[in-house]
Amino acid sequence: MKQKPVCDLIGFFKPKSIALIGVSRGASAFGGLSFMRRLLDAGYKGAVYPINPKAVEVLGIKTYPDLAALPEIPELVTVCVQAAYVPAILKECVRLSIRHIHILSAGFSEIGTEEGKNLEKEIASIAREGNLLIMGPNCMGPYCPSAGLTAWGAIPGLNGRLGVISQSGGITQRLTEHVTSLGVGVSKAASIGNATIIDSPEYLEFMGEDKEIDLIAMYLESVRDGRRLMRISGNISPCKPVIMLKGGRSEEGAITAASHTGGMAGDVKLWNAFFSQTGVIPVKNINEWADAVLAFSLLPKTEGNGLFIVGGGGGNSVIYSDAVMEEGLEVPALSQTSMDKIRSFVPVAGSIAGNPLDLWESFVNTDRLCEILDIAYKDPEIHMVVVDRLIPRIAFHSPEIDDPIPQIANFIGSHTQKKPTVFVVDYDGGDPELNAKGSALRTRFCLSGIPAYPSFERAARALVHFQKYYLRFKAKDRM
Amino acid sequence: MKQKPVCDLIGFFKPKSIALIGVSRGASAFGGLSFMRRLLDAGYKGAVYPINPKAVEVLGIKTYPDLAALPEIPELVTVCVQAAYVPAILKECVRLSIRHIHILSAGFSEIGTEEGKNLEKEIASIAREGNLLIMGPNCMGPYCPSAGLTAWGAIPGLNGRLGVISQSGGITQRLTEHVTSLGVGVSKAASIGNATIIDSPEYLEFMGEDKEIDLIAMYLESVRDGRRLMRISGNISPCKPVIMLKGGRSEEGAITAASHTGGMAGDVKLWNAFFSQTGVIPVKNINEWADAVLAFSLLPKTEGNGLFIVGGGGGNSVIYSDAVMEEGLEVPALSQTSMDKIRSFVPVAGSIAGNPLDLWESFVNTDRLCEILDIAYKDPEIHMVVVDRLIPRIAFHSPEIDDPIPQIANFIGSHTQKKPTVFVVDYDGGDPELNAKGSALRTRFCLSGIPAYPSFERAARALVHFQKYYLRFKAKDRM
Repeated sequence: MKQKPVCDLIGFFKPKSIALIGVSRGASAFGGLSFMRRLLDAGYKGAVYPINPKAVEVLGIKTYPDLAALPEIPELVTVCVQAAYVPAILKECVRLSIRHIHILSAGFSEIGTEEGKNLEKEIASIAREGNLLIMGPNCMGPYCPSAGLTAWGAIPGLNGRLGVISQSGGITQRLTEHVTSLGVGVSKAASIGNATIIDSPEYLEFMGEDKEIDLIAMYLESVRDGRRLMRISGNISPCKPVIMLKGGRSEEGAITAASHTGGMAGDVKLWNAFFSQTGVIPVKNINEWADAVLAFSLLPKTEGNGLFIVGGGGGNSVIYSDAVMEEGLEVPALSQTSMDKIRSFVPVAGSIAGNPLDLWESFVNTDRLCEILDIAYKDPEIHMVVVDRLIPRIAFHSPEIDDPIPQIANFIGSHTQKKPTVFVVDYDGGDPELNAKGSALRTRFCLSGIPAYPSFERAARALVHFQKYYLRFKAKDRM
Repeated sequence: MKQKPVCDLIGFFKPKSIALIGVSRGASAFGGLSFMRRLLDAGYKGAVYPINPKAVEVLGIKTYPDLAALPEIPELVTVCVQAAYVPAILKECVRLSIRHIHILSAGFSEIGTEEGKNLEKEIASIAREGNLLIMGPNCMGPYCPSAGLTAWGAIPGLNGRLGVISQSGGITQRLTEHVTSLGVGVSKAASIGNATIIDSPEYLEFMGEDKEIDLIAMYLESVRDGRRLMRISGNISPCKPVIMLKGGRSEEGAITAASHTGGMAGDVKLWNAFFSQTGVIPVKNINEWADAVLAFSLLPKTEGNGLFIVGGGGGNSVIYSDAVMEEGLEVPALSQTSMDKIRSFVPVAGSIAGNPLDLWESFVNTDRLCEILDIAYKDPEIHMVVVDRLIPRIAFHSPEIDDPIPQIANFIGSHTQKKPTVFVVDYDGGDPELNAKGSALRTRFCLSGIPAYPSFERAARALVHFQKYYLRFKAKDRM
């Protein structure tokens, strides 16, 4: 059977020139003018052509009355006019052989009226006949830090190995901002809205073959060709992890999704079957999504699900054990060799020698912590490590200590055994200074290549996704 | 049947004098000396008597060779010596008619040796024969801000209406610090460790009758008399919510619990039956615990489980709907009257008029937000409200706006309809400044009497616990 060729989507992400249609001074809060301002602020280096028949210049840049008047054929057209005017613009694009069009405008099937639905059908028909590639409508469009195309999302953008495909601009903004601030950069993100012409399977196929992308995060509400999504996901998933936040799992969520992007969210059972058949990793909220992205971006592969937990305190050791067991991870007993070493420095009273290891000293003595990591890395029962890291707080009587991160990062980075190791820095009270301190510590861990999470539960959930993926696809890795 | 009288535990929390035994200069990191220093730092106003036969003074305070040498009988004795020396001290307490004894020392049944188990049996026997009240051993002991007794936990303490009973000092430190920093004060907290003599049912009964306490948070690993705990919990729960973090739910967690406080954590099915029969509210981790404490401390009662969700954006509206439906809350359609009002100001394209309401303006126009709250409070389908609140971030193009909290708090506080309303301020990326900004905003909401949470999912979970409790006990309230 002949396969559809992978769409030529690169023009969306690295266009040499962009024409913006609908850049008026009477624009609404988030119209074309504001979008253009962000594009310029974000440092896009290509040519920007505002189209406005009534103005001479906008934001200091010469305007043109229409696409035909431009000095060159723009590689990408961003359409910001009211929905009713979009069909005429698309016809002009066909006439001028412009292929890549991002429709920011909303007001199509998602508003639920006959007029909106008919407009969406009309643009679909024009696009198919004219062989247009359309991102949207009703979306923020492409985002590509290496091209300076970061009018929305994290600004300044950070180039990296992550691809994002999303039916929500807001969610994509949150995800890209979140991971970028922790040092995980984005190769390409597509906010695809109603995805009327090019749908998620095409973007996924494109990113699956994109050598600049190692990991794909998706937010989907609906898909037109579910079989195609399943086939492509199943092909890509063993090579590149695909982490999906599926919106509209519940009936109420599905109703909201129809008002958001106009599609039917589909049956939860079908989606569960999709996840189990393809190996695509399902997450339920943005934090879980970002946490998993962090783990897959920074950690070496794991060979198993045996977790070693270090340093949380007695009560925490208990509830952490509960949490990981409920998640399906193991907290195996350490080997006799490991226990002999550990007993040599863990006090009999007030600590717990074992797994979890409850040892106050692990918070304040980095040499000891590295010794503990060394024991874990050499123990065949242990495959992954999570370390609780306190920030100094008065209730814990915890002293300020020298910055431990360089020593820890160096130890982990240079160890011959590569076992996924994450940290938890979990201050969550109301003191803004301590929140900033905790955040700074987590960020510096991440920038040193070590994922750090704001709660143990979030670390555990990220590791669950991580190990499930690698245990599933281990066989293929080894072929 | 004659009931055991409620234990006279007030001497632990508001003692006029404290003797500390085991205050030596060669103390370990967390020995008696450090505990005494914290006691003095924390501003305890009663008499402090360090006992040390070899010193003249410690930290500038006169020492005494033994309890008998003190100028008065101390109301509370805190024992910090090695476990083997504890029995002799208890005998001395019996002889001197000292009843309230906190044993900080560890090294009893929790270390798993015959010697440890026998020592615990011995102190139990001395205590029973001598009618001693013992908190511990292996615990941080009492905490009571109104008495300045805050050697551990949040320092400075904040007096309030919360009671805490916990088998983990570390967990109690985390909880008290967390809620105190958000303006929810603590009346009394007891870190009860192995709970050898006085066990959780007695502390619960005491706090149940304590007029200074409205809400009780418990962390338990084990209990000796489960029937007694069930009976007392069942009596107290309809009058005062009891929120319990149960450690050792899993097999691994139970094994760890045995190493922590020496008890058997018990069957998960029995504990599930306990929760469903008593109405005690089960939580799984510290954040969920603190979040629920915040809701129960600050919110008016709810009459139902219909939630109105305001302002999250399109994609968030979808995943928020999913989240609350999966938690068992409802996201009902608004009444026709409400919808007519809302449609008058919600744009057709790019927003969603309904429940959830996706309206960018709700972030930046506080008058509009109050108008929306007014609509919700007057809508009979709506019982609770959750509002997404952005902090200004560049990726959202969100402007700095005037401080909205006084206006919001005043509007909610003075509205004739009291419906539980919470906010979500969810920045969770790696920028320490934005984390501090989000934290400051949450804290200021809480200090204004409005719970604010760092994620929608955490807000929803807190509201689930909250409404379940009030729907269960509504009938009793009305009797």
